Amino acid sequence: MADGDDSALTGLMPAVILSHPQMGENIGSAARAMKNCGCSDLRLVAPRDGWPNPAAVAIASGGSDLLDKAAVHAATSDAAADITLLVATTARKRGMAQIEMNPRQAAAAVIAHHQAGGKAALLFGGERAGLDNDEVALANIIVTVPLNPAFSSLNLAQAVLLMGWECRMAALAACDGHAMDDILAPDQGDHKLAEHGTRAFFYQMLEEKIASGGFFTNPDMRPVVMRNIKAMFNRFPLSEQDIRTLHGIMKSIERSGKAIDHADDSDQA
Amino acid sequence: MADGDDSALTGLMPAVILSHPQMGENIGSAARAMKNCGCSDLRLVAPRDGWPNPAAVAIASGGSDLLDKAAVHAATSDAAADITLLVATTARKRGMAQIEMNPRQAAAAVIAHHQAGGKAALLFGGERAGLDNDEVALANIIVTVPLNPAFSSLNLAQAVLLMGWECRMAALAACDGHAMDDILAPDQGDHKLAEHGTRAFFYQMLEEKIASGGFFTNPDMRPVVMRNIKAMFNRFPLSEQDIRTLHGIMKSIERSGKAIDHADDSDQA
Repeated sequence: MADGDDSALTGLMPAVILSHPQMGENIGSAARAMKNCGCSDLRLVAPRDGWPNPAAVAIASGGSDLLDKAAVHAATSDAAADITLLVATTARKRGMAQIEMNPRQAAAAVIAHHQAGGKAALLFGGERAGLDNDEVALANIIVTVPLNPAFSSLNLAQAVLLMGWECRMAALAACDGHAMDDILAPDQGDHKLAEHGTRAFFYQMLEEKIASGGFFTNPDMRPVVMRNIKAMFNRFPLSEQDIRTLHGIMKSIERSGKAIDHADDSDQA
Repeated sequence: MADGDDSALTGLMPAVILSHPQMGENIGSAARAMKNCGCSDLRLVAPRDGWPNPAAVAIASGGSDLLDKAAVHAATSDAAADITLLVATTARKRGMAQIEMNPRQAAAAVIAHHQAGGKAALLFGGERAGLDNDEVALANIIVTVPLNPAFSSLNLAQAVLLMGWECRMAALAACDGHAMDDILAPDQGDHKLAEHGTRAFFYQMLEEKIASGGFFTNPDMRPVVMRNIKAMFNRFPLSEQDIRTLHGIMKSIERSGKAIDHADDSDQA
């Protein structure tokens, strides 16, 4: 997936249904979080302060296009009419019969559902009351978020962000193996990893210099000590450039030894 | 883990360092997000409006105990002095030498690091400017969040929530196994990880010596070059023993410089 192009995920990300949202600011923040994650289909059920709501637009910033397109419905069942997998996020367990999942499991289910040709939505309740039991009963999957039991409340936009993020990660994993490889692989940029020969030559130079400087106080232990030094440097993925830098450092320290005792004839070239 | 008991995660969750945060409200919201996820160690670097800040307390709600305990430092390097794995979250890629990860990979690294007896922290920049390059250079891991490229900005509390959530999920996964046995009795062997203060002293010695040896051919570039060198060494988890070894190597190379030009007065002691 090219930088700046999010289109590969479009068909995989779920709709978001906000049921009875109260503050316009929270609707705007939720729209931002959706856009962050690549969700675009926002549906509102009976927003308390009517619609459109200038307070939502004021805070939505780059997410305001989602507000412009948002569909408004009178009831959650209407908003979910075309939805084939409804995922309800609740703060507390309901003891209902549906499958309970954590956000990661639910995100995997959403993406798999889209890959199978279905249409999934995430359902969130209003700020004060959350979802009522009839709404929860509509859902196919109930999500509870395993946060700190002593402090588990999220605001609406945070809950949308967290679920959207999980869906995004699942979608990235699913949409294109290569895209995910790029995203997950440590970015080496210009950092072509050093070949073993390059490393070996560096170790040889290093060993000569530190031997000459009296590093190996016990000659019998020299192979073991040197092996440990190599192991230390081998713990990190040195690039060709890194090895050049290390050679430069080594030469400069060597010159500094001359500079300290014989400043007049130090070689700064 | 019993419901309502978050104590099993306590030793696995990272500290959070907020560098130069501006709005007290955002510090309070970040503290809430930390508490949601089970993080408790908050450190502030030069908060713009001083500390304590009533605006932070007003919004922190149940997270205000984190604010009461928060340590305030003048510089990020001070805040990270006892940290052995520093994870910087940045909005854009920096092209620096450290390992880049997404939040999920970084969370796995944090938990594994704690299981090995280390101490990790998540580092976040201020609202306006983010982290400066010197702060990024301190980090062992750079995290970029693969959000919608056309709309990728998160506010501070959202970034803290997202990273905290990923660490929490990784910690819960670790606790589900028999990982707790290892956590309770970490066997570090001789490999106690170096604290940042130990690293900082090594870098200082190294800089003095290579400067004396003429490494910095362009004095204007010295800060940038030195930052890249630190970033290179920060890519791997150096132990206290490793740092001692590096000091020994440095001294020996220095002596070898004298030995080559002045074999008669070389100091092999």
